[in-house]
Amino acid sequence: MELPGALPLGELAAAFATLPVFPLFDLAYYIVSVLYLKYEPGAVEMSRRSPFASWLCAMLHCFGSYILADLLLGESPLHYFSNHSSVVLATAVWYLIFFCPMNLFYKCVSFLPMKLVFVAMKEVVRVRKIAAGVHHAHHHGWFVMMATGWVKGSGVALMSNFEQLLRGVWRPETNEILHMSFPTKASLYGTLLFTLQQTHWLPIAEANLIFFFTMFMIVCKVFMTATHSHASPFAPIEDFICPVFFGSVASGHASHHHDHHGASHDVSHPPPPPAKSKEELNEGTRKRKAKKAE
Amino acid sequence: MELPGALPLGELAAAFATLPVFPLFDLAYYIVSVLYLKYEPGAVEMSRRSPFASWLCAMLHCFGSYILADLLLGESPLHYFSNHSSVVLATAVWYLIFFCPMNLFYKCVSFLPMKLVFVAMKEVVRVRKIAAGVHHAHHHGWFVMMATGWVKGSGVALMSNFEQLLRGVWRPETNEILHMSFPTKASLYGTLLFTLQQTHWLPIAEANLIFFFTMFMIVCKVFMTATHSHASPFAPIEDFICPVFFGSVASGHASHHHDHHGASHDVSHPPPPPAKSKEELNEGTRKRKAKKAE
Amino acid sequence: MELPGALPLGELAAAFATLPVFPLFDLAYYIVSVLYLKYEPGAVEMSRRSPFASWLCAMLHCFGSYILADLLLGESPLHYFSNHSSVVLATAVWYLIFFCPMNLFYKCVSFLPMKLVFVAMKEVVRVRKIAAGVHHAHHHGWFVMMATGWVKGSGVALMSNFEQLLRGVWRPETNEILHMSFPTKASLYGTLLFTLQQTHWLPIAEANLIFFFTMFMIVCKVFMTATHSHASPFAPIEDFICPVFFGSVASGHASHHHDHHGASHDVSHPPPPPAKSKEELNEGTRKRKAKKAE
Repeated sequence: MELPGALPLGELAAAFATLPVFPLFDLAYYIVSVLYLKYEPGAVEMSRRSPFASWLCAMLHCFGSYILADLLLGESPLHYFSNHSSVVLATAVWYLIFFCPMNLFYKCVSFLPMKLVFVAMKEVVRVRKIAAGVHHAHHHGWFVMMATGWVKGSGVALMSNFEQLLRGVWRPETNEILHMSFPTKASLYGTLLFTLQQTHWLPIAEANLIFFFTMFMIVCKVFMTATHSHASPFAPIEDFICPVFFGSVASGHASHHHDHHGASHDVSHPPPPPAKSKEELNEGTRKRKAKKAE
Repeated sequence: MELPGALPLGELAAAFATLPVFPLFDLAYYIVSVLYLKYEPGAVEMSRRSPFASWLCAMLHCFGSYILADLLLGESPLHYFSNHSSVVLATAVWYLIFFCPMNLFYKCVSFLPMKLVFVAMKEVVRVRKIAAGVHHAHHHGWFVMMATGWVKGSGVALMSNFEQLLRGVWRPETNEILHMSFPTKASLYGTLLFTLQQTHWLPIAEANLIFFFTMFMIVCKVFMTATHSHASPFAPIEDFICPVFFGSVASGHASHHHDHHGASHDVSHPPPPPAKSKEELNEGTRKRKAKKAE
Repeated sequence: MELPGALPLGELAAAFATLPVFPLFDLAYYIVSVLYLKYEPGAVEMSRRSPFASWLCAMLHCFGSYILADLLLGESPLHYFSNHSSVVLATAVWYLIFFCPMNLFYKCVSFLPMKLVFVAMKEVVRVRKIAAGVHHAHHHGWFVMMATGWVKGSGVALMSNFEQLLRGVWRPETNEILHMSFPTKASLYGTLLFTLQQTHWLPIAEANLIFFFTMFMIVCKVFMTATHSHASPFAPIEDFICPVFFGSVASGHASHHHDHHGASHDVSHPPPPPAKSKEELNEGTRKRKAKKAE
């Protein structure tokens, strides 16, 4: 949508959309990703005992989006690893965060003002990846476009069960699709918007959409990181729409809106046990008996 | 095998083999698949709490065969999702079965006579998929042909562990290869027959094989669904052949012939614990000590 | 590196590198692989109850390297199964080891002097696979070359969690990357050497590298098999280098140098629980609280 008075905004958005992400924004992406890996219980221990496994986990955190997108499109999951500079940069970030003498690098990057800057820069990369993913899968149709954009935005979160398995951790009771964290859910909505834009159902230029959605993501993530807030900006809309389309949402729903990185530590807020209505219990028992006999 | 007196049968089989499966037979396939998803413990709860995860499970149930076949052949696992009509139809079936007001649609399709019709139509699709899978992989050789046909016929059952993982359920002690349900085993035998036919070792026209094997599958599945029977039609032959080639089959073997969909509910019939002979126990201990030292 | 006086050695290495691995060396590879499958607890039981699952496990053990390499390069994981002779040979080995009357074949091949010959021949195949894998991925860049060579050398070990899952066993607390067995670690170092050689950073002819690395692997594996030894030949170097680059290695490190096939039986030597320093405990708690709030 190009209004004559919005030309400066259009030019700003266009310039923003073509800003090169390598090396600075990618560097911020790697820093935030490896920081979150370091927060995981046992990650530091693992880096001492099994540095190779630790490095591999860091690579999954940094390049998970590319790996998943390539898997979905039937290409080599290692395709992105041909970009030696990116891999070397991510390796350097991993090494400095885990092994820098006196933990100096870690202390610098986790200093809150610095961290907020990196978090904001990471969102720039995330939105670019969603747009690129949707664009790359353009000729495959709607569903493939949306899936590709989604995994590009969510990254390692969508393979969290298996990334944890690599670290010797196994939590099958939850996964990022069953209980979506904010970045994963935002990526899902974002990929829908970018798909609508690509198929000309949303009358907005791609650069403008990238700009506005990035601003939205930056504001949300910086706010959530700075205030240690749980609240999802989508909750009001979802709590209005979901009961209409999908029946009553259980009261425990709101407590699940927390960042993926908190999910693995959420020992004090486990997903509430499924509360079955009497009708569902009877129905389930009857059907199970029927199925068992089939 | 074309006998002059069997021309009408040959024509019937040829017409049957070219019957378009979309939309009616595919619709029946989706209905039965999503019905079985609904029977799973916690599935209704999941549809309320995490509708997206529920939809994704339904897509795995409806299109698992295509996803697995594409994975095995090194193609994009989302390739079939370019067929928008099929995905929209399956989505509509999922929505109606889980969210139709007063559960109306579910009650209609699970009314036994209706359900038997859908079950029969699903088998038409299954056999067509096996034939198409074997045909598609023709130039890759015997083993790839058989594998492709098998996964096309078995569908989501072969990835049941991971489909359950998506629902937050993890049962590693069993899987569809270790304890085959009737559809999976029938697909295995079917893919063998179709491979033999494709490589001209079985002197029968493809259309006739499709016809006869479909009739066999329809009769078996309709009978098993209507009578809630466990008995596998393969048991007599297997109980004769297997001891010859593979040694004595443990007495618990017969109890494993139940439909995949019952497997996950089979809490009262867990696979019997491995009964080791004294010789195997000694041998195992001796070898484990040797291996530990290597 | 070709010195005039080393021409005989160069010719020997060249002849060695072009020695056809099929059928004799491949046969030895299959025998050792299926032997190790038979050692697994419950494997014999599984072969009687679910012969198809047992056969599939055997195929994973024999062809796991090809499957993994093809997955990493985005090709069909069943690509190697077009080689009918290899699959039939491996199937015959599986059948004879599990079902030969009076266990005759098993007793022959596990007779220690015979077994040592087979183990040596298996190492010839392993090193060839590493070299071939690095060569095949040459145009993809360093990291893809190393990854491909590594999975070709390690084989089924790298997918051990999922191979065990097929047998109904699930041990998520360990995996081959977290606690590397000798063959996996040797394959990792080997792939590094072959990658350096391919990219001309290591001034040695490929044939000579194949020869010397194979001799090294044969000596190590034959010694470890014959003496039931745990000791890894890499331990002295690693215990010197790792503390320099990766901080202090926990004292439990040395006990993890055992062959993969012993790993699954290593019930008396579980990985020591992570010993966190007080600083790490405090840091971890503080960060988890911060992350939970994000």
